[in-house]
Amino acid sequence: MPWMNLRRASSAMVDLPVARAGESWRETLDRTALVPRGFGFFRRRLSFVPVERPASQPCEMNLAWLHNQGPEYSAAAVTTSNRFPGAPVVLTRERLARGVVRAILVNTKVANVAAPGGLETARRVAAAAAEAFSLPREEVLSVSTGVIGWGLPLEEMLREIPSLSQGACGAGGFAEAIMTTDRYPKAAWTSLDPDGPDPDGPDRDGTDRDGTDRDGTDACGGPVILGVAKGAGMIEPHLATMLAFFVTDAAVPPDMLDRVLRRVTEKSFNRLSVDSDQSTSDMVVALANGASGCSVGEAELEAAWQPLADRLALEIVRNGEGTSHVIEVVLKGFPSSSLAGNVGRHVVNSPLVKTAIFGNDPNVGRILMALGDGLSRYDREGIMDTSRLVMTIAGREVYRQGAFLLDQETEELLCASLRATAMDPVLAGVPQDRGTVRIVLDFPGDDREDVRVIGSDLSDEYLRVNADYRT
Amino acid sequence: MPWMNLRRASSAMVDLPVARAGESWRETLDRTALVPRGFGFFRRRLSFVPVERPASQPCEMNLAWLHNQGPEYSAAAVTTSNRFPGAPVVLTRERLARGVVRAILVNTKVANVAAPGGLETARRVAAAAAEAFSLPREEVLSVSTGVIGWGLPLEEMLREIPSLSQGACGAGGFAEAIMTTDRYPKAAWTSLDPDGPDPDGPDRDGTDRDGTDRDGTDACGGPVILGVAKGAGMIEPHLATMLAFFVTDAAVPPDMLDRVLRRVTEKSFNRLSVDSDQSTSDMVVALANGASGCSVGEAELEAAWQPLADRLALEIVRNGEGTSHVIEVVLKGFPSSSLAGNVGRHVVNSPLVKTAIFGNDPNVGRILMALGDGLSRYDREGIMDTSRLVMTIAGREVYRQGAFLLDQETEELLCASLRATAMDPVLAGVPQDRGTVRIVLDFPGDDREDVRVIGSDLSDEYLRVNADYRT
Repeated sequence: MPWMNLRRASSAMVDLPVARAGESWRETLDRTALVPRGFGFFRRRLSFVPVERPASQPCEMNLAWLHNQGPEYSAAAVTTSNRFPGAPVVLTRERLARGVVRAILVNTKVANVAAPGGLETARRVAAAAAEAFSLPREEVLSVSTGVIGWGLPLEEMLREIPSLSQGACGAGGFAEAIMTTDRYPKAAWTSLDPDGPDPDGPDRDGTDRDGTDRDGTDACGGPVILGVAKGAGMIEPHLATMLAFFVTDAAVPPDMLDRVLRRVTEKSFNRLSVDSDQSTSDMVVALANGASGCSVGEAELEAAWQPLADRLALEIVRNGEGTSHVIEVVLKGFPSSSLAGNVGRHVVNSPLVKTAIFGNDPNVGRILMALGDGLSRYDREGIMDTSRLVMTIAGREVYRQGAFLLDQETEELLCASLRATAMDPVLAGVPQDRGTVRIVLDFPGDDREDVRVIGSDLSDEYLRVNADYRT
Repeated sequence: MPWMNLRRASSAMVDLPVARAGESWRETLDRTALVPRGFGFFRRRLSFVPVERPASQPCEMNLAWLHNQGPEYSAAAVTTSNRFPGAPVVLTRERLARGVVRAILVNTKVANVAAPGGLETARRVAAAAAEAFSLPREEVLSVSTGVIGWGLPLEEMLREIPSLSQGACGAGGFAEAIMTTDRYPKAAWTSLDPDGPDPDGPDRDGTDRDGTDRDGTDACGGPVILGVAKGAGMIEPHLATMLAFFVTDAAVPPDMLDRVLRRVTEKSFNRLSVDSDQSTSDMVVALANGASGCSVGEAELEAAWQPLADRLALEIVRNGEGTSHVIEVVLKGFPSSSLAGNVGRHVVNSPLVKTAIFGNDPNVGRILMALGDGLSRYDREGIMDTSRLVMTIAGREVYRQGAFLLDQETEELLCASLRATAMDPVLAGVPQDRGTVRIVLDFPGDDREDVRVIGSDLSDEYLRVNADYRT
């Protein structure tokens, strides 16, 4: 996905819940997540032998089911701009044209991209799931993440789908079921009611967590937005898909849901640059059912939603198995956010910058090189005055007036700062609120909107997992 | 540097010389290289402690000197398009404006980029070298490769430069002296006279190898072109600079030399994409002195020169310490070579494609993903009809009519083909004529010119060296 223009401070991130001793992160999410009324989650597991590799060991596939029980069925989606979209993307675009979605079937392991007859297979598994839950088949999506080029194991899926309804689970369980190589399930939620329940308070710590049992008879029961996401790229990029689902029990007309989803996505998921490629299957879907009995204003919805998307987007980068540092490039003084975004992506995607940061090496020369190369590509008219560049890393000014300001102390400070932002592998299984490696590329002048791009470093683990995947 | 449009078959590569037992590759080059009359090579070594790191161990720096004794001093250069060019690039552009260069001083270890007072320092070392050889100081270049942000160790260089003339060496010795992390020195040469001397024949195997002693009194002594190059990126990208020098004793006016250099570079070095960034110091310089007494036609010069540049460009990718496979993407049926080049670069730069190929994993899905993402970026009008794509890898068709053609046998064939093109580390110190991983992305239709882009895979060695450089 393309870069984004970050119009708001990133500090407005939602807080993470507090885990209890002995509890997995999935259990923490199941216990604490606010689930909008009228949404249910289900999961199952199956085995299959890919027809493309008859001699191989059986593969495991998760099925996950996100069910909207209404009363409304507003839906919106943002899908990949990759020119070879997978069958699930094609089907989603087709079904979203009506703006009504009652349920989403997600499968892992096989992306259903460029497989012979893939669109027809996607229709068949969606229809089977619709039948199992007695829904109109045109109002069910089939979303896939996994190996590109393989076909869905139709028989095995058709056999397992009818038992999905026996696999009710919480939001954490759903978030876990859609994971491929993510290290922990990712969910974020908020209440749209300022006087709404405390996410960690005892009043939310009951059996109403699955979101289906709450009493929806209040005139306005404090609508909730919940988002879950799985990661992009990084580890097993066969499964490189970024998927995010947002559900709310506020009443939101489809066109408004679509507008807000697009704006929120542009400012969150579209700011990521992990592998530099956009997957054939990336998708962000939002569903709204009005079960809270409350309408919500467009601005209010966006203000509540954005931090959830920001949090999930950051977690996607942070959680990649290959990520040690999260790199944050802030671009100031660019005449257009489009130019700034392209240049920022170029810097954050530079393998030389990524590897230096992985090695806790404050290699400022590589950043200058990547910036200069990015400008030569995207600023063809030479609008940017390079002599004005001021570069700041981790709060320390390192470049001004055409020359670096380097000495032993600066170098040591930058090294220490890089070490401090590296992920601790011991904590890989839970979210970490570590800082980013913050690189500010400032061309002082007119006061223009800052643009921020976020990416990951390039670690030996990335290499190992990506190169070893099938050999 | 940007991609290139390859108008000629790559099979016209010049042959490598044959090494003798017990001989280093530098010695092989010194023994076999054709050196144009009137060009001399010199080298020295010095130690210094960088002022930016007073507490560190001393660093070693090579000085190399390329001397044109005339009678003519035609010169041309192509320099980086990076928007933060190093001081040597600025100085070269300035001095090339007159088209006369008598000598080039090359130093390793410090790139003299964005160092305070860097341009003045470059002038001072060039002047000192000019004085040592009694040349006009405006006709000497200072070319640097090494750490960005550090200043040249002026005192140590001024102390060593006067002894350069005692360090006469052969073409192999010069090629070795400009190396940073290259595994072997790179040189290629050819005779412009079809009846010229045999490169390996005994008539060339004498003391005239340094090119300064040959008798230049013949009316036309069979002019020669010799190129030497050092590698880009890959290993120690502080020293990521790609440098290439071509010298000829044909009589070539500066404007013609400039035209041919640009065309030859566009079709060779500009087709590389190694780290995806263009260094702040990349430079290709050509010198011609007419010492052979022969003029040469522009077409004849280009036809003889191109294979040398092609060979050196391929060697630069092949020889990167981090390169295991050379990836060759051939794009067919694109409406413009610019679109094809951008998309091809996007594919060859995709970390997902690079890591898969490093792992000998014929992960065709990643190639499709990278192609689809590249098209979404560069083919904004949607000119390319993706349904027409035919993808061929290693001569095997793997994708047609919107779906992959995958089975166990194809997979095994592709795996075997990838293994066969991987570099054997045992042979790292000498050039290897291994094949490339050839990916053809064909949109059959009008018969348009093919565009070829060459890049490297992404190996654990790349990671290790790039991340460990300063920590």
